[in-house]
Amino acid sequence: MFEEIHFEDYELNSQRTTLGRTITEADIVLHAGQTGDFFPHHMDAEWCKTQDFKRRIVHGTLTFAVGVGLTANVINPVAMSYGYDRLRFLKPVFINDTLHSVVTISEKRDHHKRPHQGIVTEHLEVVNQNDETVLVCDHLLIVNKKS
Amino acid sequence: MFEEIHFEDYELNSQRTTLGRTITEADIVLHAGQTGDFFPHHMDAEWCKTQDFKRRIVHGTLTFAVGVGLTANVINPVAMSYGYDRLRFLKPVFINDTLHSVVTISEKRDHHKRPHQGIVTEHLEVVNQNDETVLVCDHLLIVNKKS
Amino acid sequence: MFEEIHFEDYELNSQRTTLGRTITEADIVLHAGQTGDFFPHHMDAEWCKTQDFKRRIVHGTLTFAVGVGLTANVINPVAMSYGYDRLRFLKPVFINDTLHSVVTISEKRDHHKRPHQGIVTEHLEVVNQNDETVLVCDHLLIVNKKS
Amino acid sequence: MFEEIHFEDYELNSQRTTLGRTITEADIVLHAGQTGDFFPHHMDAEWCKTQDFKRRIVHGTLTFAVGVGLTANVINPVAMSYGYDRLRFLKPVFINDTLHSVVTISEKRDHHKRPHQGIVTEHLEVVNQNDETVLVCDHLLIVNKKS
Amino acid sequence: MFEEIHFEDYELNSQRTTLGRTITEADIVLHAGQTGDFFPHHMDAEWCKTQDFKRRIVHGTLTFAVGVGLTANVINPVAMSYGYDRLRFLKPVFINDTLHSVVTISEKRDHHKRPHQGIVTEHLEVVNQNDETVLVCDHLLIVNKKS
Amino acid sequence: MFEEIHFEDYELNSQRTTLGRTITEADIVLHAGQTGDFFPHHMDAEWCKTQDFKRRIVHGTLTFAVGVGLTANVINPVAMSYGYDRLRFLKPVFINDTLHSVVTISEKRDHHKRPHQGIVTEHLEVVNQNDETVLVCDHLLIVNKKS
Repeated sequence: MFEEIHFEDYELNSQRTTLGRTITEADIVLHAGQTGDFFPHHMDAEWCKTQDFKRRIVHGTLTFAVGVGLTANVINPVAMSYGYDRLRFLKPVFINDTLHSVVTISEKRDHHKRPHQGIVTEHLEVVNQNDETVLVCDHLLIVNKKS
Repeated sequence: MFEEIHFEDYELNSQRTTLGRTITEADIVLHAGQTGDFFPHHMDAEWCKTQDFKRRIVHGTLTFAVGVGLTANVINPVAMSYGYDRLRFLKPVFINDTLHSVVTISEKRDHHKRPHQGIVTEHLEVVNQNDETVLVCDHLLIVNKKS
Repeated sequence: MFEEIHFEDYELNSQRTTLGRTITEADIVLHAGQTGDFFPHHMDAEWCKTQDFKRRIVHGTLTFAVGVGLTANVINPVAMSYGYDRLRFLKPVFINDTLHSVVTISEKRDHHKRPHQGIVTEHLEVVNQNDETVLVCDHLLIVNKKS
Repeated sequence: MFEEIHFEDYELNSQRTTLGRTITEADIVLHAGQTGDFFPHHMDAEWCKTQDFKRRIVHGTLTFAVGVGLTANVINPVAMSYGYDRLRFLKPVFINDTLHSVVTISEKRDHHKRPHQGIVTEHLEVVNQNDETVLVCDHLLIVNKKS
Repeated sequence: MFEEIHFEDYELNSQRTTLGRTITEADIVLHAGQTGDFFPHHMDAEWCKTQDFKRRIVHGTLTFAVGVGLTANVINPVAMSYGYDRLRFLKPVFINDTLHSVVTISEKRDHHKRPHQGIVTEHLEVVNQNDETVLVCDHLLIVNKKS
Repeated sequence: MFEEIHFEDYELNSQRTTLGRTITEADIVLHAGQTGDFFPHHMDAEWCKTQDFKRRIVHGTLTFAVGVGLTANVINPVAMSYGYDRLRFLKPVFINDTLHSVVTISEKRDHHKRPHQGIVTEHLEVVNQNDETVLVCDHLLIVNKKS
């Protein structure tokens, strides 16, 4: 599972698709418990019935964490996560939705200060069972160059 | 806990500080279990000893989810989370670190399409027990105007 | 969230109502796991079908813990929880019931030994989605006086 | 594990002692997550250092739920839990304390309305590794009579 | 709950039946989280619809762990678990199945090296709500002799 | 992650080693909660001090489930888990031990009834940070032949 992938090895526009994962009621309960976010949007089925979306919705931070987690397969010792840009919640996620992630290498550029490293952008789309993209973001990686 | 805060009510540069929260080993275990990210950086204490950081580090998505969760106190029915920009991991977070969040209203602007709404940016800093900022991001809210 | 509320500030018969919370199957599973109470009333759906209540029922200690937890919003540094009286389980709670708590200041009296403190009783009612009170108790607080 | 114990079978002053259980940091984290009580007394190790008790303390509802759970061994189909009286928190419980429960049949009386049932009071003491009683309460059971 | 049961006390062919337990969706989520096994057979309801079994199936290691756990009632200080033989998964287990275990003393033999000990085999069957055996195994115990 | 590996593709004596994983106190707490096994060997640190092993030991079913889970990387759609043989607990596992698994293809044989399938045995060793094997077992797979 460890695999060295250098800056030069990332191929622009290449894409990988992860396994899927059904988001359960238990996941919401655990995420509320982990974050302390017990907003009624996620935890109060009765209140939700009175709202436009009618049903409990999944925490945005849970969709993000699971969407990112689904991509955690290969450990690249020469890359480091730097941050995320343009994280957007496009559609609500509901209990029993099944999500998978699609990762596209969307940009490569030199590091402005460190000549031996570059910045690779992985564009992440989290997609539900109806092929709707529910979340997007750009994951920024600092990656070593081969030389 | 429900409190209507309209676009006009957000005061630029106003700031609020949340309660603190110690990140425990159990939190990492639960977050690995929730996201499926069992990378050795988080889960293998022996391997971590051979790395620069020497100790298991907290998942970035956990720091983010907890940092955001700490701010979830007041439910504003006239605002909606739109996404996050410029999420950056500035320092590693370790087991037993105690985090709190500082939220600053950093920007207000009209919605470019909907005249009755505006975009409010909450700049979120997650700070550890040594007053080091470990994570920053900009939270974008779409907020109704009063009229 | 820290707010000093002295004995004199508690107003007899004043009332507050909490957010609601749907009790999920996951909550029962977690509570059984936390307490070690795996009685078939909570854990064996087949056996429950043979009983009067027909469905798995929520642990009394879970209803109590959630009902109390829902009230945990304001930290009052001049008050201390002393205990509970007359905790009664009035109706069974089932999976998917949505509970909220209603707190009423039902009694105020001087501490019999310490003149600078008093005892405030918060009467707690835990109420389900059909407006039935499922649990009641009296929460006893020792609260500092202003002078 | 099912055992019919009728009102007449409960022997006044008889006592049983449960197994012990070490309360871990993970238990606090899970209980905060289950109840939504993230007060700094339980969750913020840094803040606790500034308080008299110096260390994170266990939620009272957790000590209660575990203390009661430890007694959940024999299912008595002719008894029903009715409630609890005089629940008192006598000493703080800290992470790594090991608790066990001692149950004493402290009172037996006829049900004032139903001649075929009686009320049995189990006095519950939760005791730590230093033989200090940290919590007491009276558990009220409605129990069928043999005839 | 501690009860000394010596080699001589185990009666060949004697049998005990445990309480039942409904396996919930939350149990699968927690077990995936504990083991890191997020295979789509357990976690992806959409993918499962395309397979013969149509629904998510319970991890074999979960059925085993719960089946064994159901038998954990009496602590025998003169016995030690040595291992398991012939563990077989006979039928798939689905979410909402209710399992119980049947333990039969199926074999007793002297320890080939230690004359003061013997090997007791407990044959474990895990049975679902339709009286189908879903898992079997032989649990090997090393047990002290009385003399 | 889906990869068809047929009977003919398994190479006798080939070996793979998994990532490592530190077993935490939280893992024991969660496993006790999942299985209902609250034996003092795992849950009562004070009682353990009076025993030979001095410290809480990890449930055998947890070591097994984690050891197996660590191998769950590649989904082979032409193989099916059939069961386990000769599962043995060789050494106690303690909190904070770091485990990894080593899988060796130890046997290949034809299925005695179905000519298009064979039985592949994966010998699993779970190894701790001191290079001690703590658990072994033989995992039996029914695998399709290419033709």
